[in-house]
Amino acid sequence: MNFISRLFKKASHVESKWLPGPVGDMLRSAGIATTTTVPLSTKLVTTTTHVGLDLTTGELVTSSLEDEFTAILVCLDAALQNAGVKGGLGDAHKITAYLLDPADEPTLQKIFRERYPGNSPAWGTVIVPAIVVPNMRAEVQAEAMILRSFVTEPYPGTMAYEAKPSADGYTYTKKTGLVGGLHTYGVIQPEYRVRKTDNDIPWEAIVIGAGYAGLTAARDLVKAGKKTLLLEARDRVGGRTWSAEVDGTTFEMGGTWVSHVHGRLFAEMERYGLKDEISMTRTENGGCDYFTLDTGSGSRKFTHKEAGEMTARAWRIFINIDGNNGRDICPLPYSTLGNSRVSADKVKAVDQLSCRDRIEQIKDQLTADELALLESLVPHCGGGSVEDIGFLEMLRAQALGSYDISTFEEIWTLYKIREGQSTLARCIFDDAVRLGLQYSFKSPIKSISEREGIVSVISTSNKTYSAQRVVNTIPIAVLPDIHFDPPLSPLRQEAIKINQVDYLTKIHAEVEGDLRGLRGCTWPGDFLYIYGDGFCAGGKSTRITSFAGDNRGKLDPLKEPERLETALRRFHPMEIKKVVFHDWVSDPYAKAGAAWYRAGFLTKYLAELQKRHGNVLMANADWAHGWKGFIEGAVEQGALAADTVLNELGVLGANAALGEYQSESGL
Amino acid sequence: MNFISRLFKKASHVESKWLPGPVGDMLRSAGIATTTTVPLSTKLVTTTTHVGLDLTTGELVTSSLEDEFTAILVCLDAALQNAGVKGGLGDAHKITAYLLDPADEPTLQKIFRERYPGNSPAWGTVIVPAIVVPNMRAEVQAEAMILRSFVTEPYPGTMAYEAKPSADGYTYTKKTGLVGGLHTYGVIQPEYRVRKTDNDIPWEAIVIGAGYAGLTAARDLVKAGKKTLLLEARDRVGGRTWSAEVDGTTFEMGGTWVSHVHGRLFAEMERYGLKDEISMTRTENGGCDYFTLDTGSGSRKFTHKEAGEMTARAWRIFINIDGNNGRDICPLPYSTLGNSRVSADKVKAVDQLSCRDRIEQIKDQLTADELALLESLVPHCGGGSVEDIGFLEMLRAQALGSYDISTFEEIWTLYKIREGQSTLARCIFDDAVRLGLQYSFKSPIKSISEREGIVSVISTSNKTYSAQRVVNTIPIAVLPDIHFDPPLSPLRQEAIKINQVDYLTKIHAEVEGDLRGLRGCTWPGDFLYIYGDGFCAGGKSTRITSFAGDNRGKLDPLKEPERLETALRRFHPMEIKKVVFHDWVSDPYAKAGAAWYRAGFLTKYLAELQKRHGNVLMANADWAHGWKGFIEGAVEQGALAADTVLNELGVLGANAALGEYQSESGL
Ligand SMILES: Cc1cc2nc3c(=O)[nH]c(=O)nc-3n(C[C@H](O)[C@H](O)[C@H](O)COP(=O)(O)OP(=O)(O)OC[C@H]3O[C@@H](n4cnc5c(N)ncnc54)[C@H](O)[C@@H]3O)c2cc1C
Ligand SMILES: Cc1cc2nc3c(=O)[nH]c(=O)nc-3n(C[C@H](O)[C@H](O)[C@H](O)COP(=O)(O)OP(=O)(O)OC[C@H]3O[C@@H](n4cnc5c(N)ncnc54)[C@H](O)[C@@H]3O)c2cc1C
Repeated sequence: MNFISRLFKKASHVESKWLPGPVGDMLRSAGIATTTTVPLSTKLVTTTTHVGLDLTTGELVTSSLEDEFTAILVCLDAALQNAGVKGGLGDAHKITAYLLDPADEPTLQKIFRERYPGNSPAWGTVIVPAIVVPNMRAEVQAEAMILRSFVTEPYPGTMAYEAKPSADGYTYTKKTGLVGGLHTYGVIQPEYRVRKTDNDIPWEAIVIGAGYAGLTAARDLVKAGKKTLLLEARDRVGGRTWSAEVDGTTFEMGGTWVSHVHGRLFAEMERYGLKDEISMTRTENGGCDYFTLDTGSGSRKFTHKEAGEMTARAWRIFINIDGNNGRDICPLPYSTLGNSRVSADKVKAVDQLSCRDRIEQIKDQLTADELALLESLVPHCGGGSVEDIGFLEMLRAQALGSYDISTFEEIWTLYKIREGQSTLARCIFDDAVRLGLQYSFKSPIKSISEREGIVSVISTSNKTYSAQRVVNTIPIAVLPDIHFDPPLSPLRQEAIKINQVDYLTKIHAEVEGDLRGLRGCTWPGDFLYIYGDGFCAGGKSTRITSFAGDNRGKLDPLKEPERLETALRRFHPMEIKKVVFHDWVSDPYAKAGAAWYRAGFLTKYLAELQKRHGNVLMANADWAHGWKGFIEGAVEQGALAADTVLNELGVLGANAALGEYQSESGL
Repeated sequence: MNFISRLFKKASHVESKWLPGPVGDMLRSAGIATTTTVPLSTKLVTTTTHVGLDLTTGELVTSSLEDEFTAILVCLDAALQNAGVKGGLGDAHKITAYLLDPADEPTLQKIFRERYPGNSPAWGTVIVPAIVVPNMRAEVQAEAMILRSFVTEPYPGTMAYEAKPSADGYTYTKKTGLVGGLHTYGVIQPEYRVRKTDNDIPWEAIVIGAGYAGLTAARDLVKAGKKTLLLEARDRVGGRTWSAEVDGTTFEMGGTWVSHVHGRLFAEMERYGLKDEISMTRTENGGCDYFTLDTGSGSRKFTHKEAGEMTARAWRIFINIDGNNGRDICPLPYSTLGNSRVSADKVKAVDQLSCRDRIEQIKDQLTADELALLESLVPHCGGGSVEDIGFLEMLRAQALGSYDISTFEEIWTLYKIREGQSTLARCIFDDAVRLGLQYSFKSPIKSISEREGIVSVISTSNKTYSAQRVVNTIPIAVLPDIHFDPPLSPLRQEAIKINQVDYLTKIHAEVEGDLRGLRGCTWPGDFLYIYGDGFCAGGKSTRITSFAGDNRGKLDPLKEPERLETALRRFHPMEIKKVVFHDWVSDPYAKAGAAWYRAGFLTKYLAELQKRHGNVLMANADWAHGWKGFIEGAVEQGALAADTVLNELGVLGANAALGEYQSESGL
């Protein structure tokens, strides 16, 4: 019987329990559990063998064979109930009896049957030469399952949202100069959580990247039971979407604005109770409630309404290439080509135009101010120059936003998650961890190779992980750093070489006083758009958010941070307390902003980028079907990739407990 | 050792395997398996005890103690590999050795350690007085897990989309008269699939209703491993959304049109590969390409554009109660009240208006035709009279559709799932069945009661099912038929008593020739709106879809089906081959159309309807946060309810295999 104490030694998640009272105490002092419970999909409970002990006194029961055996069964019954098996021995599916004398078996079985008439467990009787306890004639062990699943515990260290220092982001003040590293809820500590033995066999899935695409995929995979490893280069979740906590104020460093029109993202917000936890960028009647337009020839002030109308007029003319506000060219924006309403050739023809080409066609219809607003709005949306961004990109964005610019503000630049994007990212991540996700942060990947269906992933420090499927969420601009074997398709390689064109800079500042109403656009020159974005903590200073287009070679915020201040003051005189930003262009794991492409790119490469590469699913907002270049697109891509993996590897679901079915009607 | 043959007898999904060759053959003839495998979340594999047999010859190995023991281990290793444990004995977590002589144990363990150096299983040695096979000194049994999960098989009978006869729906022709029952992919056969033993303990979850809300909830629940029972009154899935297949043509009998703006629904379409499987109601340049307006004083023809512009003008004036196209009153349409932008009082004030009240305010600004179009569009959308439908209902719908009627066609009445809504419903259902869903159709529920946290559900034929959580998706109009114990809250009871107001009739017809361009509106009178809806199978006749508002007491399609023909011909002379429809008003499990409410209802009752009732989650499109009264809202409600259940019951996810973690960096 000595093997019992070592039973299930390998699985260290096994829970041992002892009966309260003398029987349990005796076992405890011998280092043997009354029961051990193994968390499978159901729980499997095994009892230690029991001899006939009186449950209350702990004394041996030797008055008669019947009494001894009854005492054993009473012990086992209590033991199982104590471990959570509601029906006790009546629910046991396996009984093993060790008897001295074969002739005693009928007695034991008779007593069992009388006490548990409905139950017919698998029964094993082993005749043994001796029972460890002198004078006793039997030891019995039982095994049962707890059919209801259990509430998993949050992994210690997660779930508590405390902003911790990340290596990402910068603050700048005249006094301190440029300082790297901001606090965020997105930092994960401990940074490594991998079970020692789990890396010996291939993982079911590895997810590379903990942005929204990777988080969504990882959560969906573990929720359906897949043993999944998440590998992330940074020290935090969220990728190009994260919020820094600076002196009590939340700054959105990348992806920011949300809308119910972003159905999958909004569903995540609903799921984690954030649907109504909204704050707004625009503050009506806030200080400096006007729109500054500075087109180089000096700065003028407009009401927000005037500026909006000028922009809208220019934009409507710009978009209306088909006389139908884009509906003819982009009737089904989730299906750029190959949809049922417009021929591929027609779309390809429009895709030959850059935004500059399109502006050339219509600029005569615009006033100088309207033209400036249009020429700045394009890079504000797409982060690149009007020359670089394809016109179809803007048309598609318009189609997604219901074919009119009137929805622009509320979809693109108005609503934020009050507690910051990193809160939502943490909700998804912590949910996944609770569901069994294993992970390693600060683990940049350098190569992905596949042999005989198994994908191996190698980190820059030469650790290898392998999996049946990999969900790779590395952005297009970073893909050139990854070695693929077998190599990516020539068409995809071509696309990656051309790359995207969004090299925006997004700069925040904390400025003295109330500038919450401020909006403006300076174009051309160092900055593009500015938004007063609510008060900072304390209510005496304003959070400012501003965007520049592609400034590479012109304004490097890391080299000339003081010029950021100058640029901001172009909109309005302001007392800048600090500048806060993330430099996406120099970031080795982003290398650019959200993905927007050149003329000709979407119709030639988008479908190719979406394809899988063998057992590597490629999932990133950079090539989403719908809201490409948005958080919504990241969630879409992660969810679809997880679906594919789950379909291919199979999901046990609720099949664990399935047995024989009745097909005749029973209700 | 005789207990092995009965091991796991209770779990009838256990798979027995025999080694090919003499060793396996011997066991097979004795009725004992070489291995038995139990599908848990991981698989647990147990071997039969093995004595020292030569794997190739099947002969006893007695040459030496070492040889005998090695032979045993070789057998076990092969046995485990044969059962799918890749690492064989090297992966075993439990070894049980039955030995004659304690002195032999070190030898056995030494051989084991030499052969499987990395593995340290739980090891039990039992000293026995005899080994069944003469001359042998040991029998050994091993247990291991297969850590990768397995691909589940589709349940036989599902997955093959064959239209089968349902009791639902009607056809009418002069010749046959009214005939009940149409074919649909939505019919599920066998109608009952419940494991005999699973109903003895409470289910983890019961889902009542197999509409989109119930299907989504059930699929999400089983995917995360919850033992779930789906109970549905009808013989088919889809509830108020289903498609009939009549002579090769698909007719959408209820919920029809889809859009990427419906993010959760569209995500389901993406998931099941239906994103691009779209057909359109409107056929440009189809026959009869004009809009008929018949306001009682004769019928006039307009171009579609003219009719669209008249409607849009009227609608914009109607909606614009706040001077901001509804944005001020309904800035965040998923949060009618309690959002951060508009005070509850302001919204409640607007909610006092019925559509008739609002029309009274603005009718002077409209032409007679515009007024007729507006007065008919309201009941077309909301299925009730302008008196019955609250104005806030229309404002909310407008807000969801991006604050302008220009998106109306493409969101409300243009795109369909080409193979019919029942195809998508079947995709979700079949996925759920594959994941272990158990179900019973033709099982109307009459009561729902809760005692000590366990919910009992009783069918009209007095079968009782109980569960830890119930997701109830019965529509508001049917809730009065359900007995709740404890009773529903007084406020909810009040809401249910007031009920919704959508009593629309939707009628299809197959008509001779090409009427695909036909559109029109006859108002007031028997019918409201008509749409040419593509060719029928064969391409020689047109599918017509038409809508009436609340016709109760005026036109009963079951009593005067011939009047439907007359009504249709009011739009255009037509040769009607057959009329096809579902009478939602007389349907005992719908009793009404999609849910639209009276003035004052949304602000007073919507939040109450969304609340749970103890352990009964209430989930139906009728009270969705966002697209209430749409398929989108059904998916939202089902998903949120499943989330709640999963959070409360806990999900094992990928925790099954978790053991000790490393927290130091390993990459
Ligand atoms: C300044 C800015 C503003 C934006 N504003 C908005 C907005 O308002 N609304 C909106 O919806 N969207 C916005 N976006 C876009 C949005 O942020 C992105 O589309 C989205 O976050 C992308 O998510 P993803 O998971 O697809 O990719 P990412 O977030 O880039 O995730 C990829 C992950 O992979 C990791 N990674 C990269 N290389 C490696 C490697 N070699 N090894 C391991 N891990 C690696 C990265 O660190 C990252 O965590 C904005 C983006 C930027 C930059
Ligand atoms: C004619 C019509 C046209 C529509 N057009 C559109 C459209 O174009 N686009 C759109 O998005 N939406 C449309 N809708 C609305 C859409 O169909 C519904 O909002 C949606 O289908 C509701 O789904 P649900 O799962 O919430 O409820 P239901 O579909 O009603 O599901 C409830 C289920 O519960 C079952 N049930 C009821 N009582 C019992 C009981 N006692 N016991 C057991 N089961 C019971 C029912 O049989 C049903 O299967 C339309 C609706 C109608 C009627």
